[in-house]
Amino acid sequence: MKISPLADRVVIKMVEAEETTKSGIVLASSAQEKPQVAEVLAVGPGGMVDGKEVVMNIKVGDKVIASKYSGTEVKVDGEEVLIVRQSDILAIVED
Amino acid sequence: MKISPLADRVVIKMVEAEETTKSGIVLASSAQEKPQVAEVLAVGPGGMVDGKEVVMNIKVGDKVIASKYSGTEVKVDGEEVLIVRQSDILAIVED
Amino acid sequence: MKISPLADRVVIKMVEAEETTKSGIVLASSAQEKPQVAEVLAVGPGGMVDGKEVVMNIKVGDKVIASKYSGTEVKVDGEEVLIVRQSDILAIVED
Amino acid sequence: MKISPLADRVVIKMVEAEETTKSGIVLASSAQEKPQVAEVLAVGPGGMVDGKEVVMNIKVGDKVIASKYSGTEVKVDGEEVLIVRQSDILAIVED
Amino acid sequence: MKISPLADRVVIKMVEAEETTKSGIVLASSAQEKPQVAEVLAVGPGGMVDGKEVVMNIKVGDKVIASKYSGTEVKVDGEEVLIVRQSDILAIVED
Amino acid sequence: MKISPLADRVVIKMVEAEETTKSGIVLASSAQEKPQVAEVLAVGPGGMVDGKEVVMNIKVGDKVIASKYSGTEVKVDGEEVLIVRQSDILAIVED
Amino acid sequence: MKISPLADRVVIKMVEAEETTKSGIVLASSAQEKPQVAEVLAVGPGGMVDGKEVVMNIKVGDKVIASKYSGTEVKVDGEEVLIVRQSDILAIVED
Repeated sequence: MKISPLADRVVIKMVEAEETTKSGIVLASSAQEKPQVAEVLAVGPGGMVDGKEVVMNIKVGDKVIASKYSGTEVKVDGEEVLIVRQSDILAIVED
Repeated sequence: MKISPLADRVVIKMVEAEETTKSGIVLASSAQEKPQVAEVLAVGPGGMVDGKEVVMNIKVGDKVIASKYSGTEVKVDGEEVLIVRQSDILAIVED
Repeated sequence: MKISPLADRVVIKMVEAEETTKSGIVLASSAQEKPQVAEVLAVGPGGMVDGKEVVMNIKVGDKVIASKYSGTEVKVDGEEVLIVRQSDILAIVED
Repeated sequence: MKISPLADRVVIKMVEAEETTKSGIVLASSAQEKPQVAEVLAVGPGGMVDGKEVVMNIKVGDKVIASKYSGTEVKVDGEEVLIVRQSDILAIVED
Repeated sequence: MKISPLADRVVIKMVEAEETTKSGIVLASSAQEKPQVAEVLAVGPGGMVDGKEVVMNIKVGDKVIASKYSGTEVKVDGEEVLIVRQSDILAIVED
Repeated sequence: MKISPLADRVVIKMVEAEETTKSGIVLASSAQEKPQVAEVLAVGPGGMVDGKEVVMNIKVGDKVIASKYSGTEVKVDGEEVLIVRQSDILAIVED
Repeated sequence: MKISPLADRVVIKMVEAEETTKSGIVLASSAQEKPQVAEVLAVGPGGMVDGKEVVMNIKVGDKVIASKYSGTEVKVDGEEVLIVRQSDILAIVED
């Protein structure tokens, strides 16, 4: 089964805790958002979003730090994924 | 009886639980929105919405993941449908 | 007596419950808005509204589903009507 | 004494209850606004308001339905009047 | 000592109660704002305010009705004055 | 040590109480903001701020009336200063 | 491991308390934000952010005063860093 995000939305999947430890990243959450290291599974086409042109800079396979609260959790084929807006992705992480 | 949504609105109908199980999708809701897999029954014409041009990318028959809280529930000929804005549709799902 | 709505406003009158039952529509309200089937009695001229050009697509006699909370109730010649913005009308209903 | 409203503001005076009864209008207020039948006493020049061009369509002598809460009550020469924005006027009423 | 208001701000001074009575104006305050008859003491230069061009229509010596809550009270050389935005001035009053 | 404010920000230092008394200014605070007489120590370059061009009219050495709540207090070399936006400065004061 | 901030985001690292004392800066926090002296570790590319062109003026190595509450804390290779928007950086500090 395939999820195709619309507009500026991105489907991401949280990276497992073991993998997180290996890359040396530990995440502390601020009071208002719970950051996450995640892998990008699918990227929307961008285009006009709320009257503004959005270009997608994220690509499938990127490891990213995102804010969880603006996203929507969906379980697909037994895997939990998260649909967020590109603007909810703060940074790309490389090992 | 026929419902013709206006502007950027879309009429959707929740997909039955059995069908949801078959396609392997189980939905978990975040604190602020209750996502839904639904089938698109009717699509508005788009055009100028709040001073911004909106092009409709959704088409009748699409299976979509939407956010419920921004929609309005209506019961038509015994069936419950939901009228949402296109921007409340997060992704298209394919089996 | 005649009410001429201004700008993007529309005067509507709730359709009687019997009529609602005949057409097979029963409305369930979400937590934030109480939808309504109504008949359009008068339509404003549109034009610039809050700096944006609004074209009126609704016409007198249309049966519509509207959101009640943004409207203003007025009793004219013994009949209760509602003045809403066109953007508060979600869909047109046809039998 | 004379009040000259600025920008998109309009000075209105509530129509007496007797007159209201004669024309057959009885007003019911929604939870958020208390509508009013009023006569227009003075109209501002319009022009740029919050960066948007506003054209005044209301004229002195019009009978209008307005929303009270956004206005400011002033007593002039013993008469209570109300200063509202043109956008707070919902409709023009004719007998 | 001299106060030169910036941008679209205006320095006003409440007119004394006696003078208010003489001109026949008595002010009643709505729940959200406490209107005031005041004399204009100084007017800012206008220009770009929050990305929008503002032209000043008020001039020194005007008697105006303003909303108090958006202003800032300052005591200058023993006199209490109020610094408000031009958009907080509702009307000009003439005897 | 030197603080260079960014964009439309201004570094100001509260004028001592004695000096305030000398110039005859006593400040009363409204419910929502606590005004202040202050001296300007440093001025940002202006430019594009939130998509709008901002020109700086304030200069170092100006005595100003500002609103405190939008600013950030910083102690530099033992002195308490305040970083505010230019739009939080209401007026320039001259003796 | 490397963090590449997106859009107008900046990765900063709080300066140690000893260093803060040496440069003579002591920070007092207002009620709404907790300012911070920090060193810039990485700067995003800028570009279109929410429909507005953002040019990055901050560079790696700058000592800055930022507001903490809008940022997201991340621990990378044992170090706590903060991802903020450029607009959350108030000033550049030089010794």
